[in-house]
Amino acid sequence: MSDAIHITHVTVTPVAFRDPALLNAVGVHEPYALRAVLEVCTDQGITGLGETYADAGHLRRLRQAADALVGLDVHHLGRMHAAVAAALGGDTGSDGHGLTGMITSNSTVDRVFSPFEVACLDIQGKAAGRPVSDLLGGAVRDRVPFSAYLFYKWAAHPGDEPDSWGEALGPEGIVAQARRMIDDYGFTAVKLKGGVFRPEEEIEAVRALREAFPGRPLRLDPNAAWTVETSLMVARELDGVLEYLEDPTPGQEGMARVAREASMPLATNMCVVAFDELKPAVSLDAVQVVLSDHHYWGGLRRSKLLAGICDTFELGLSMHSNSHLGISLAAMTHLAAATPNLTYACDTHWPWKTEEVVAPGALEFREGSVAVPTAPGLGVELDRDALARLHEQYVSCGLRDRDDTGYMRRIDPSYERKVPRW
Amino acid sequence: MSDAIHITHVTVTPVAFRDPALLNAVGVHEPYALRAVLEVCTDQGITGLGETYADAGHLRRLRQAADALVGLDVHHLGRMHAAVAAALGGDTGSDGHGLTGMITSNSTVDRVFSPFEVACLDIQGKAAGRPVSDLLGGAVRDRVPFSAYLFYKWAAHPGDEPDSWGEALGPEGIVAQARRMIDDYGFTAVKLKGGVFRPEEEIEAVRALREAFPGRPLRLDPNAAWTVETSLMVARELDGVLEYLEDPTPGQEGMARVAREASMPLATNMCVVAFDELKPAVSLDAVQVVLSDHHYWGGLRRSKLLAGICDTFELGLSMHSNSHLGISLAAMTHLAAATPNLTYACDTHWPWKTEEVVAPGALEFREGSVAVPTAPGLGVELDRDALARLHEQYVSCGLRDRDDTGYMRRIDPSYERKVPRW
Ligand SMILES: [Mg+2]
Ligand SMILES: [Mg+2]
Repeated sequence: MSDAIHITHVTVTPVAFRDPALLNAVGVHEPYALRAVLEVCTDQGITGLGETYADAGHLRRLRQAADALVGLDVHHLGRMHAAVAAALGGDTGSDGHGLTGMITSNSTVDRVFSPFEVACLDIQGKAAGRPVSDLLGGAVRDRVPFSAYLFYKWAAHPGDEPDSWGEALGPEGIVAQARRMIDDYGFTAVKLKGGVFRPEEEIEAVRALREAFPGRPLRLDPNAAWTVETSLMVARELDGVLEYLEDPTPGQEGMARVAREASMPLATNMCVVAFDELKPAVSLDAVQVVLSDHHYWGGLRRSKLLAGICDTFELGLSMHSNSHLGISLAAMTHLAAATPNLTYACDTHWPWKTEEVVAPGALEFREGSVAVPTAPGLGVELDRDALARLHEQYVSCGLRDRDDTGYMRRIDPSYERKVPRW
Repeated sequence: MSDAIHITHVTVTPVAFRDPALLNAVGVHEPYALRAVLEVCTDQGITGLGETYADAGHLRRLRQAADALVGLDVHHLGRMHAAVAAALGGDTGSDGHGLTGMITSNSTVDRVFSPFEVACLDIQGKAAGRPVSDLLGGAVRDRVPFSAYLFYKWAAHPGDEPDSWGEALGPEGIVAQARRMIDDYGFTAVKLKGGVFRPEEEIEAVRALREAFPGRPLRLDPNAAWTVETSLMVARELDGVLEYLEDPTPGQEGMARVAREASMPLATNMCVVAFDELKPAVSLDAVQVVLSDHHYWGGLRRSKLLAGICDTFELGLSMHSNSHLGISLAAMTHLAAATPNLTYACDTHWPWKTEEVVAPGALEFREGSVAVPTAPGLGVELDRDALARLHEQYVSCGLRDRDDTGYMRRIDPSYERKVPRW
């Protein structure tokens, strides 16, 4: 038998990377997105990588968890999960969990455990000489399709030069953004982040996309900006146009009311974000598609559990994305490849990113999809210079928590957060 | 990266091992129990072991599946599952599935896939130098508790010498059987297979067990021999005595009616035996405990999925057993060790068995539990002489399908199968 592989220490490095002024239902992306890069080191000399949010409270919990994991075998994920739960001791993680305005429930242990699990699978894969997908039941596809993720956006953050994408504040800008994204990456499915303008304007944008890109699956996600009545109006107006409508209204009960009348499936990454929310969601028939996200569903193996639950309870399965770097993209790709019932193209913020921490070459978008890495583990390596640079950027930028609303209010003091808004 | 490990061929060897005259709701165990031993061979020279039913129809489907799996990588379990489904081409497996009278639904693909999956995990573990439990998230316990499995029984099969256990046809015999089993193996939980005599007699037997072994969890499983009304009568009579009541009555709707009034949890391995039965069971609140069984839930990873579903939907989890050999006991032990919410002692028929195909020493019952093997893979090896002998016994015994009812009717022509009987 091979030696056990024990965790000796964990390095948690917060980084900041430049992020465009992308608008959403609760404000606007700040100039930097924060992420934490985890390096899990072992007594066998193998190191594993993980990536997660870097809000201050989450960082504190990551370090608490890291201390509790030293000495455990990287194969003992069940014991690791229990150790993280014990280390957090009931901390509900209501502060700084990295998903401001997007999370409505408590899955703190899963959220903290996730990057450690990914790193341990990276180590397991390297030790066994197998890609992470093989530790998840094996890839059932060689390439993983992603969707274009469109945002209303300003041309620049206040005081900055316009970015290369420019402004998108109406149907024309959105169609132009989609065209470039499709031209550059070949995406076949298209998602628009809504909840920014009046629903009528966003309906127009979706119709413009439908006209410009006939036959391509389209999605709209207003992040619960609408009442049930408004949601039903939008559903009627976009009947036959949307592949799914994502989180039109807050809460499972509101979603269930919309679902009863809407013609398209409702998807969510807001009202079902933890295992304890699945039973009520199934009972209410609140949603038809769950967007998985290994960052808050407890890592790759627990995301496979979510997938199996969706399969068993006749729910569709898609994949959610936050602003992320290459470690997470690799993890998402392995997971998606090994999940047979993940039949929707996954979300990704990848094209919005101009900075990276992993060495180039491992992950490329071609025809809207990413080839599943076949090297042992996740198949990505840190670019240490880039990591140091983005950590320095984290230190100097001063941001410590994601706060889309606060940033917007500093720019426009009249801005008010309101859910639902229309 | 290590080389891929491709399946080159699979040997399926049916075996028969002597089985005592154990009574149940549909008849009596025949003199031999049938099992199939699978050896999955690979181009890396590593062989993996699996064990399953050996009814004629199931054997035929195993061989069909084996042909379809040649050339696949042992890590590609998702692709293997799909290949088995394609090879069976909609065969519902209503003939000879090895669980006469115990299965009420169709999960043929999972049932056929299971021993291949176990064998491939055995190979993966051997290749990586890790025990199978480590491929399932790691053991959360070093020993797995099992329960004593009591049967009403004849002293012998007709024409044979009495076996060492002798007759057990009433409370005294059952208590004596329990005492020997507890003395020999240290079991802390005790299950009685019922549905054999009038419910009043079985209630008396359970009360005798309670008196003889105070404080020990007790279970009663009549295999759906009772109407809803009779089930409720038994539940009232055994209020406060049973840990759980297993399958008192047929069907999810009947179980739900019993569950609404019974004071103890209801368990099942009859009305929830496939993934497509979980959604209705949850909706009806038909059962409180599901007995997993990797032989029909599609192997160890899919049994982990079942466990996660039970955890998510607030169902208890226990483990079912058929007459089995050491390969299955090893698989059950790895699975149970890596399943945190498997909090009930598992069923096992182990003590009833006098013949074996694995080399001795790997699996021993001490204080009612089995130590989780730590050698790579399942941690058991074939005893080739024993395998040859039990295969010869299969050939000569003439049994080709499990048929507890037919055997009983040959002994007692007036016996009629009736569900529910009381
Ligand atoms: Mg969303
Ligand atoms: Mg049973």
